Amino acid sequence: MKNPLIVVNFKTYAESTGEKAVMIARYCEEVSRDHGVGIVAVPQIPDIYRVASSVKIPVFAQHIDGAGAGSFTGHITAECIRDSGASGTLLNHSERRLLLSDIDSALTAAKKAGLTTIVCTNNVAVTSAAAALSPDFVAIEPPELIGSGIPVSKADPEIVRASVAAVMKINPEVKILCGAGISRGEDVAAAVELGTSGVLLASGVIKAKDPRAALIDLVGKI
Amino acid sequence: MKNPLIVVNFKTYAESTGEKAVMIARYCEEVSRDHGVGIVAVPQIPDIYRVASSVKIPVFAQHIDGAGAGSFTGHITAECIRDSGASGTLLNHSERRLLLSDIDSALTAAKKAGLTTIVCTNNVAVTSAAAALSPDFVAIEPPELIGSGIPVSKADPEIVRASVAAVMKINPEVKILCGAGISRGEDVAAAVELGTSGVLLASGVIKAKDPRAALIDLVGKI
Amino acid sequence: MKNPLIVVNFKTYAESTGEKAVMIARYCEEVSRDHGVGIVAVPQIPDIYRVASSVKIPVFAQHIDGAGAGSFTGHITAECIRDSGASGTLLNHSERRLLLSDIDSALTAAKKAGLTTIVCTNNVAVTSAAAALSPDFVAIEPPELIGSGIPVSKADPEIVRASVAAVMKINPEVKILCGAGISRGEDVAAAVELGTSGVLLASGVIKAKDPRAALIDLVGKI
Amino acid sequence: MKNPLIVVNFKTYAESTGEKAVMIARYCEEVSRDHGVGIVAVPQIPDIYRVASSVKIPVFAQHIDGAGAGSFTGHITAECIRDSGASGTLLNHSERRLLLSDIDSALTAAKKAGLTTIVCTNNVAVTSAAAALSPDFVAIEPPELIGSGIPVSKADPEIVRASVAAVMKINPEVKILCGAGISRGEDVAAAVELGTSGVLLASGVIKAKDPRAALIDLVGKI
Repeated sequence: MKNPLIVVNFKTYAESTGEKAVMIARYCEEVSRDHGVGIVAVPQIPDIYRVASSVKIPVFAQHIDGAGAGSFTGHITAECIRDSGASGTLLNHSERRLLLSDIDSALTAAKKAGLTTIVCTNNVAVTSAAAALSPDFVAIEPPELIGSGIPVSKADPEIVRASVAAVMKINPEVKILCGAGISRGEDVAAAVELGTSGVLLASGVIKAKDPRAALIDLVGKI
Repeated sequence: MKNPLIVVNFKTYAESTGEKAVMIARYCEEVSRDHGVGIVAVPQIPDIYRVASSVKIPVFAQHIDGAGAGSFTGHITAECIRDSGASGTLLNHSERRLLLSDIDSALTAAKKAGLTTIVCTNNVAVTSAAAALSPDFVAIEPPELIGSGIPVSKADPEIVRASVAAVMKINPEVKILCGAGISRGEDVAAAVELGTSGVLLASGVIKAKDPRAALIDLVGKI
Repeated sequence: MKNPLIVVNFKTYAESTGEKAVMIARYCEEVSRDHGVGIVAVPQIPDIYRVASSVKIPVFAQHIDGAGAGSFTGHITAECIRDSGASGTLLNHSERRLLLSDIDSALTAAKKAGLTTIVCTNNVAVTSAAAALSPDFVAIEPPELIGSGIPVSKADPEIVRASVAAVMKINPEVKILCGAGISRGEDVAAAVELGTSGVLLASGVIKAKDPRAALIDLVGKI
Repeated sequence: MKNPLIVVNFKTYAESTGEKAVMIARYCEEVSRDHGVGIVAVPQIPDIYRVASSVKIPVFAQHIDGAGAGSFTGHITAECIRDSGASGTLLNHSERRLLLSDIDSALTAAKKAGLTTIVCTNNVAVTSAAAALSPDFVAIEPPELIGSGIPVSKADPEIVRASVAAVMKINPEVKILCGAGISRGEDVAAAVELGTSGVLLASGVIKAKDPRAALIDLVGKI
């Protein structure tokens, strides 16, 4: 079984804000090192600098805009988050959907800045469209399962299989994550079984009573 | 030379609002009939019923939302515009960009309602993504050329050629229009020469001193 | 008891689309005439022309954009809906929220076109802000009560009272409607008792088994 | 002459990103201390922590969303920016306009987090609406003058005077800044003369050949 990637979205949970974001990222780093599994921490944008200064695992932004340097008050640029220590970004998360043209310009800005990109999608057609834009990853997350505790790999394996097939057809260099409802090691194993390169999850770790134990459980069956 | 399609976007120009929309649509109908060329009228949404009740050529909406029947105040549904006499719609025009996920849901709603769809795009990557969503048409319109009077077929033929190639690769059933700066028959001929199925234009007809003459000039070299 | 205004939002309900919109509007007209009560029909935008051509009561749009004549594909302009027969518009409905600056520009466009304006709001602070923009009406609708069947006048009379007080302080020329959960004559009476000029409702009429009877019940206690 | 406030918006200029943001903020701190004038640094959101850890002057965010702790991937919360060291925020800048209801919820979130708020506006009506929401400041900035080098106090003093009068009428506790085209000490003096509490500027400092000298010039006539 090849090494899957675990992407942990901190959302705006109180449990993963400020110094708590640093603490969760340290758990991610420790589990990543101890278990030899790639884990990416995705804190809130204002926390990127603090988190990235504290850990050696990859830190991604939850969102960037397509804007570059200039008169773009309030926009999040690829350059600024990279300068803060991020090495990648989510785009088009279901809680922060983007215009098609802005996904494209954000991808262009991210590539120019050397950032790894994960475009979130909600169904097979949108996964195909995202793959056509050549991000590094697409992350298929049926919105109705996000935060449900029911893993997509169990509730709707077909959407994952069809997404994998669609991406293979459109652009086989794009890797696939699956998200929504992931919380246990067996969910990760199932996701990999379905042909993905890993998982994107949030509450399964951040809202766990013991996030460190949840991370260990996640990677335990790999 | 095969028969290209001429799609005339009425935008919100005063010259093509209300009764004037009906008049321009009648010119489109007359020229379409006299010259055996497909012309589509794309009036403002409130004018669809009036225009569609007055002419026999296809009438398209300038935009629909992905919402269906329900609690969606102010949204434009596929069902309602079809019921008003439209047989298709533009989507994601540069003046009305959409979320990727909304383009997908609008396409799904449009197909269910039996509407023809044209997704507007701004570059080759976005054209590829749009093609992956399987609309009937993509319309490539470099935003900087819209309303410029400089036809994309002359200013940037490579973007049209590359769009045609990208669509052929992603989904060869999707047809391609090109837009931006089109105003004369030779622009239409050039567009077809580059492998497209026709053109999308607005000011070249609507803002012409004599819109009927402009239409005749457009189809004259076909 | 003074004459309240009944504003019936057709939303995108299947029961009030196309010819059914015309039918509901005719019921509104009949009840308005028979009972001497002002009733406004608010059909979907593509249905405005059809409805306004069929009835003599006021027909309002569910939304307009701030854009005027020009290069604004897919936008809904004040001029076009007035030209289609509308005499007013809702703005900023909870299902179609607007940028503050767009509410302002839409109000300016509506006033220039001679349209009556109703700005929807969700709490007392937003009601105050809307009143400062001097629309003809604000319609206070706590979002959690929309479609609930629980009238705001019963569930939260204080928000209506405080909204009336806030508007009196900011701009006493602005009239107030209340919405959310309205379906019966006693809800209308309660709304007027609280100092409003009438009600904005949707499902209470459109989704009623007998919309005509629902309208008669609404105005029966006036 | 009373002490005006100078708010320096770093936008996403390359000259004020990352370590350069820290450097500009240090100039602001030095000039503030040496001249006894309040200066606020408004870096990009990912730079807040770094800047706020390096200087003692107030650091504001360029934008926050109304969302709080929870499932709001990519949103900027009041709690997170305060935790990063910010003590206030701009809202509704012309380059990042917000829904009216989101300005309200962002103000509520900011107040709860103890943040100072500046709502940007584009004309007298919008200034009135913003004042009705009771932020700490409104900043009137005619969009056509932003970055023009022509100070609003010279190009359109009447819009500033009318804004001051409108705010006095709606909510006299709200203070007023003026922005757009400000670059010199005499612009600040003129702004105060018109009844404002200070200025909001960006390129006048950040794009100056010598930002420190530009800051000294700004406060020199106070």
